[in-house]
Amino acid sequence: FDDPESTREEILAAAYRALCRRGYADLTIETIGEEFDKSVSLIYHHYDGKDELLLACLDFMLEQYRAETETETPTDPRAELEGFCDEGLLLDSSSDDREFIRSLVELRGQAPHNSAFREHFTRSDAFFRAHLIEIIEAGIEDGTFYDVDADRTAEMIQTLASGVFFRYATADDDEWRPALRKELQAYLEARLYRSSEAV
Amino acid sequence: FDDPESTREEILAAAYRALCRRGYADLTIETIGEEFDKSVSLIYHHYDGKDELLLACLDFMLEQYRAETETETPTDPRAELEGFCDEGLLLDSSSDDREFIRSLVELRGQAPHNSAFREHFTRSDAFFRAHLIEIIEAGIEDGTFYDVDADRTAEMIQTLASGVFFRYATADDDEWRPALRKELQAYLEARLYRSSEAV
Repeated sequence: FDDPESTREEILAAAYRALCRRGYADLTIETIGEEFDKSVSLIYHHYDGKDELLLACLDFMLEQYRAETETETPTDPRAELEGFCDEGLLLDSSSDDREFIRSLVELRGQAPHNSAFREHFTRSDAFFRAHLIEIIEAGIEDGTFYDVDADRTAEMIQTLASGVFFRYATADDDEWRPALRKELQAYLEARLYRSSEAV
Repeated sequence: FDDPESTREEILAAAYRALCRRGYADLTIETIGEEFDKSVSLIYHHYDGKDELLLACLDFMLEQYRAETETETPTDPRAELEGFCDEGLLLDSSSDDREFIRSLVELRGQAPHNSAFREHFTRSDAFFRAHLIEIIEAGIEDGTFYDVDADRTAEMIQTLASGVFFRYATADDDEWRPALRKELQAYLEARLYRSSEAV
């Protein structure tokens, strides 16, 4: 959202900033308008309500991520997987990221009673699962990884990442993250990495 | 909440039913009153607003769980741990549970921008962590488990359980759960269970 290329992207960027600042409950098209340089009537012209706008925001972010990762072929599956785990476990997260994670978790927190949000997150989970499976299968293929069930391994990593996001955004303690990082590393060495000492 | 013992517990049970039925956003003290046999003014007498009432509800459920688990000393650590994992991975969940999990996730989804909810979930995470560590240390002590870092193992299981709750409540697909169950079992056999074939 740093460099919006159209009015539509400017609206999405404004919605994202307003969400980070206020949280979902206090958000309205009017308060999103306060983050937007042009007339709020333009927002109403494009979107019927805040949920439709926030869903467009989520779709835009997922498409950006998809475009970034699709250009990369997994030539080094272990490095790719560790990169994914670093992101999923928020290893290098800054305070900016915390606002992003909190907003994402808050939106996903609407999904239990909002089927449009549920559909979005079902779709994004399917995307991340497919991406992980692709990396794991490349590693099995080139001999870096044991011949595991890629689906099972992918679900393990994805569920851990979901848990990390959820805990990070909704609890005040953070000491659990270094412990989890070490245990995930031990799990990958025990179950996935073939002759890790040689890598 | 099946057998409330006081007006206070009747109010908490009504809040819980209203939450499951309507979701957080549509909840008011008035709509909670519709689930309550007595006058809605009694609810106002006890609680200042819906968040205070829902937090009391969460505290009550945590205390019930704490009371149930504190009476049990971990005499069979592996069975205790598998019981915990079965609950955490929602292995025997019914549609009633789904409503409960959805409500719990929705309340936890308020925590990013609500410090009172964040405090509750920080406290409940600390309780579950301590409970898991107790089970794991008992298993190390009696030789059932390898001499692992109990804290790391506990964080792994707890983060997986958080991820399971989050995904289960907020996405429509469920096929990931059997794959995850098998992978968690493989992880425990690789990292925790000593001579599992002998058990």
